[in-house]
Amino acid sequence: MQKGKASIQFEDSPYITSAASVAGTKEGEGPLGALFDVTEQDDMMGQENWEAAESSLQKKAARLAVEKAGLDQGKIRYLFAGDLLGQLIATSFGLMELDIPLFGLYGACSTMGEAMSLAAMAAAAGYGDRNLALASSHFATAEKQFRFPLAYGNQRPYSATWTATGCGAVVIENKAAFLRSGERKPMAKITGITTGKIVDFGLKDSMNMGAAMAPAAFHTIWQNFQDFGWDERQFDRIITGDLGTVGQTILLDLLRKEGYDLTGIHMDCGIELYDGEKQDTHAGGSGCGCSAITLCAMILPKIQEGIWRRVLFVPTGALLSTVSYNEGRSVPGIAHGVVIEHAE
Amino acid sequence: MQKGKASIQFEDSPYITSAASVAGTKEGEGPLGALFDVTEQDDMMGQENWEAAESSLQKKAARLAVEKAGLDQGKIRYLFAGDLLGQLIATSFGLMELDIPLFGLYGACSTMGEAMSLAAMAAAAGYGDRNLALASSHFATAEKQFRFPLAYGNQRPYSATWTATGCGAVVIENKAAFLRSGERKPMAKITGITTGKIVDFGLKDSMNMGAAMAPAAFHTIWQNFQDFGWDERQFDRIITGDLGTVGQTILLDLLRKEGYDLTGIHMDCGIELYDGEKQDTHAGGSGCGCSAITLCAMILPKIQEGIWRRVLFVPTGALLSTVSYNEGRSVPGIAHGVVIEHAE
Repeated sequence: MQKGKASIQFEDSPYITSAASVAGTKEGEGPLGALFDVTEQDDMMGQENWEAAESSLQKKAARLAVEKAGLDQGKIRYLFAGDLLGQLIATSFGLMELDIPLFGLYGACSTMGEAMSLAAMAAAAGYGDRNLALASSHFATAEKQFRFPLAYGNQRPYSATWTATGCGAVVIENKAAFLRSGERKPMAKITGITTGKIVDFGLKDSMNMGAAMAPAAFHTIWQNFQDFGWDERQFDRIITGDLGTVGQTILLDLLRKEGYDLTGIHMDCGIELYDGEKQDTHAGGSGCGCSAITLCAMILPKIQEGIWRRVLFVPTGALLSTVSYNEGRSVPGIAHGVVIEHAE
Repeated sequence: MQKGKASIQFEDSPYITSAASVAGTKEGEGPLGALFDVTEQDDMMGQENWEAAESSLQKKAARLAVEKAGLDQGKIRYLFAGDLLGQLIATSFGLMELDIPLFGLYGACSTMGEAMSLAAMAAAAGYGDRNLALASSHFATAEKQFRFPLAYGNQRPYSATWTATGCGAVVIENKAAFLRSGERKPMAKITGITTGKIVDFGLKDSMNMGAAMAPAAFHTIWQNFQDFGWDERQFDRIITGDLGTVGQTILLDLLRKEGYDLTGIHMDCGIELYDGEKQDTHAGGSGCGCSAITLCAMILPKIQEGIWRRVLFVPTGALLSTVSYNEGRSVPGIAHGVVIEHAE
């Protein structure tokens, strides 16, 4: 079950039984627009402030994922969830009404990978037969917290990414319990995970998160290959969270130096989510929500259909803090890998 | 293995095999002062800023716990860790050098309970034979983030608690792997957990965290009793994290209304940590570090000696955010319960 230094191979792979994506307006106008379950008409979502708007994304995605799995809310045992905001306020206010035990997580934009890893561990071990893993971000809450007030209208360099507005949620179930429960069909299965460590290459540019995260993504992918005795040929796609164009180049370079060529099979949710030129998003999308909604709207359906048989999903996080940043510290990164396969 | 709505009873209870506590100066002058492994001589810990000081607490506690368990650092499979700071900067910078896969957690002051729960789940399921669970807080980093700059010298009402400076770390090991490994003796075992949900009674006073957390503590203790078919007589002590004197009164009242009388067996780490009158700490101690160092320095040794046979350890968190607070929102709470028993 334990594989190598940082991986687990599940003996009875837990199933992903549903996925829900709720996206913001800009995301709805992008290349994946038609694929989201819900595209909001207004980024305030009828709420009084941006944070409450992000909470409403979480609530909506959580409810929809449970409904799509054909379950009652009361059947979900654990929530594994997080967001980018201090003290996870989008999560705490968003999921409160669900009345379900919560493990609050912080992995910056890697949170969806962390949540799915822990939910899969809990499901496979029989701790929770049905769990919900979710992560969200909102452009306005994130810019306000990490960079400048929106009204200030600061210029963004081309290396900057655009924090996605959206929440993705998946239901992860114990295999045996799922099969006992009857007629439902799984979307995919999680056959393994590779858990990331903090990786710091000393980058200090808060407007170039892709470069800060690329070494962490590299490390997790490399570790996955070592732990499982694999290389890139075992995967139909290796999909990072939000490296953007700048981070992607660095990642491919780092892997090439170790003898792995990911050209053609590497994909980055941040690059997929927007039409960079038309939508003025510069290096791509970012935020916990970026990889979460891309997973739910595009990646999982392709795995379900069998177009891709095995994918390494690697959400990437830059542990940017205004406090440590203003103290002159670097921006370390972390990335959590989840091996998702077609379920027969 | 799944018990009731929110609990797990482990079939092969994982062992706590070591505990390390690193405390600040004020904590060293308090009633538990003689019990800490390390008491810092200076709250800056030789660092350039408060955040780096808190990181150094984490690093020191982690290393010491591993050493006390008789292990090499490379033998630890997973870190489950967190702190109170935005983006968990104390944790990310503190634990980076350990080079171990990390699950970053945010449960406000309940983080030690969350970390131990997940580490115990990972250990019992065989995902990680040896894991480290830790949590820290620092008075100066927390006040700066949540309330006022220290130099401002604001007055604190009597309901306010004092954020503890300290880090507690425990090594949690898989039972079978531990027994195979030879001559070492366990400190205690984790026989069950009860995972908290977000509980919001609508309190809005950032200077009265005890009152905000008491309903969450009540809910987790009550849920534990329901899930295991227990009441207060099954425990030698039920120990909350940092309710302080105000929160304790509310908790005992809430439980009394449900027919449970915890007088005599309830203890609160926040009340134990300081001599409130002499040390001017008002309602008691708080912060992730408060319950973590009290656990490591005082509670676990008593369980190891058999003075207490079964303890319900319930770190309590108030999900206070300056953003949501300034938007007029309430302060929700969460509490995570860990059943710790004497290991024969």
